[in-house]
Amino acid sequence: MTKSVRIAVDCMGGDVGIPATIPASLAFLERNPQASLLLVGDTPQIEAALEGYKAQYAGADYSRVEIEHASEVVAMDDPVEVALRRKKNSSMRVAIEAVKSGQAQACVSAGNTGALMAISRYVLKTLEGIDRPAIATAMPNQKGGATTMLDLGANVDCTAEHLLQFAMMGTALAQTADTGRLPSVGLLNIGEEIIKGNEVVKQAAELLRASPLNFYGNVEGNDIFKGTVDVVVCDGFVGNVVLKSVEGLAHMLGSMIREEFYRSTLTKLAGLVVRPVLNRFRRRVDNRRYNGAALLGLRGIVFKSHGSADDYAFRHALQRAHDAVQAGVLDRIASTVVDLTRHQTGTK
Amino acid sequence: MTKSVRIAVDCMGGDVGIPATIPASLAFLERNPQASLLLVGDTPQIEAALEGYKAQYAGADYSRVEIEHASEVVAMDDPVEVALRRKKNSSMRVAIEAVKSGQAQACVSAGNTGALMAISRYVLKTLEGIDRPAIATAMPNQKGGATTMLDLGANVDCTAEHLLQFAMMGTALAQTADTGRLPSVGLLNIGEEIIKGNEVVKQAAELLRASPLNFYGNVEGNDIFKGTVDVVVCDGFVGNVVLKSVEGLAHMLGSMIREEFYRSTLTKLAGLVVRPVLNRFRRRVDNRRYNGAALLGLRGIVFKSHGSADDYAFRHALQRAHDAVQAGVLDRIASTVVDLTRHQTGTK
Repeated sequence: MTKSVRIAVDCMGGDVGIPATIPASLAFLERNPQASLLLVGDTPQIEAALEGYKAQYAGADYSRVEIEHASEVVAMDDPVEVALRRKKNSSMRVAIEAVKSGQAQACVSAGNTGALMAISRYVLKTLEGIDRPAIATAMPNQKGGATTMLDLGANVDCTAEHLLQFAMMGTALAQTADTGRLPSVGLLNIGEEIIKGNEVVKQAAELLRASPLNFYGNVEGNDIFKGTVDVVVCDGFVGNVVLKSVEGLAHMLGSMIREEFYRSTLTKLAGLVVRPVLNRFRRRVDNRRYNGAALLGLRGIVFKSHGSADDYAFRHALQRAHDAVQAGVLDRIASTVVDLTRHQTGTK
Repeated sequence: MTKSVRIAVDCMGGDVGIPATIPASLAFLERNPQASLLLVGDTPQIEAALEGYKAQYAGADYSRVEIEHASEVVAMDDPVEVALRRKKNSSMRVAIEAVKSGQAQACVSAGNTGALMAISRYVLKTLEGIDRPAIATAMPNQKGGATTMLDLGANVDCTAEHLLQFAMMGTALAQTADTGRLPSVGLLNIGEEIIKGNEVVKQAAELLRASPLNFYGNVEGNDIFKGTVDVVVCDGFVGNVVLKSVEGLAHMLGSMIREEFYRSTLTKLAGLVVRPVLNRFRRRVDNRRYNGAALLGLRGIVFKSHGSADDYAFRHALQRAHDAVQAGVLDRIASTVVDLTRHQTGTK
């Protein structure tokens, strides 16, 4: 059964703003006939954009759109303090408050990550049993599925307990896509051949082994893309560096292959011949389809879109937030925490 | 001026052993008319292989080859203790001892990393002023050059001082390829937008800023492939995870593009048309060309080849070791340490 889901959209956030968020919202409405949106930002600009895209998104039901005015915008380079203390009527904050008040079940923003995390923590608070929220995303893997990875930068110095909590939250998020099966969890570590892991990781492995989670054991960097496990857990420093490194490699390979095809008239012609093949490949690895990182551990669902997301990418972030609400991720995290506490105290 | 360089080769190490190391050695001799090799391992097997490859490598001058017998082999899954204490006549150990005795100026092994590091430390000892050796490798970057990255797994829990020492050693190694210019050093950190870095990294940045090194500042994961700096410094946990992750991504992308070209007869034909273009691309990104990680900080030059290296990859590791000797990496590290000490004590 599909529940009716309502998502608050920070229409002004990110590098692009309205030219990305409004068409993405309309495309999302076309695809999700049960969903509705609360578009937050500068009302005149939003209204003008809705009018402008009307013909293009004829299938979008405008009656499922509501606008909430917000007079300020959190800039991409605003310090967290400015965003949190001085811009109380920012589109980001109003969107998060809509989740707090129950007007919406989730919020999506392409605005700056630090501000989004800080305001979300301040407005929504963390869930009982969770010390620190974490950022999780899905990465494509060789099995044709996706590997959920967290934390991606919210927590730099982590304890073993934090890593355990990340594993719980990642499990709850990964179950979204599945049907009941308990997702497997891998702890990111380094090769057996070298000195094995640091102290925190060793302790976390013990906690995970003793937990009711489906702990696979240690995994290495390449396992993310092999699809060895459903959820890969690491501290935010490692997660962020890995995420940026693989983005960097993908970008380099993309521009190198373009260079080869633009080398001469002959290679350009060859490029035309294989265009359909390369396009299929490009679609498979298009990271816009994986846009939308979840801020987990809060009393509400918040998704962060890539700052430079276009409408295609932003639509995927909306979809992810929608699917997380429908899968009841919030309740899942809460119940996982309860299970774990019972398990630890032996009152099960 | 090219000095005559002699390299000790652990012919038995790695997944492949002699079928990789011997043809690689002969190809290396063809390309480096001043170099000579000390082939370490099972004499009958080495002699048979040398005979077998004679016709194929007609340009290799066999008078520049010497064989040193070693009766044991360190297996890829041998625990460090076994390799170090029980296999005192392993090809790995004898090759390292040849560096210690001055018989060779460098040694190259595709054997297990933990054993290679442990035996190298035990036999060669660390350089004055270096607390811990580190593992460094070169990664291709978008500028068409290579980014030197360390540590890749020798040191899991690092202090700020260790990171400073890695920066010194990385600088000395990266100068090999250059002509005098002091290589720039970046400290691997996470985005400004999130909480910035951990405590150790913050302290390391201060040490680096106060050092005579060419410190660029913090860099992020994608800067490795952008070529923002010549040397990227991080702790061994982060470095190892990044290395494995990018290998994993590259592998996934490679198999996905193959899948697309093997989808149908039509795409296979298209693949034939673009084969020269794809081959050029493949050569550019072929990680075998980047094979050979340096174990830095020891009183001798030791290079680790990838365990699964074939002859083409192993030849590149030999070349790297050769070039490091010729560039005087060892003296460079020692003099960088002296410079830094002078700088710190203000007696400059």
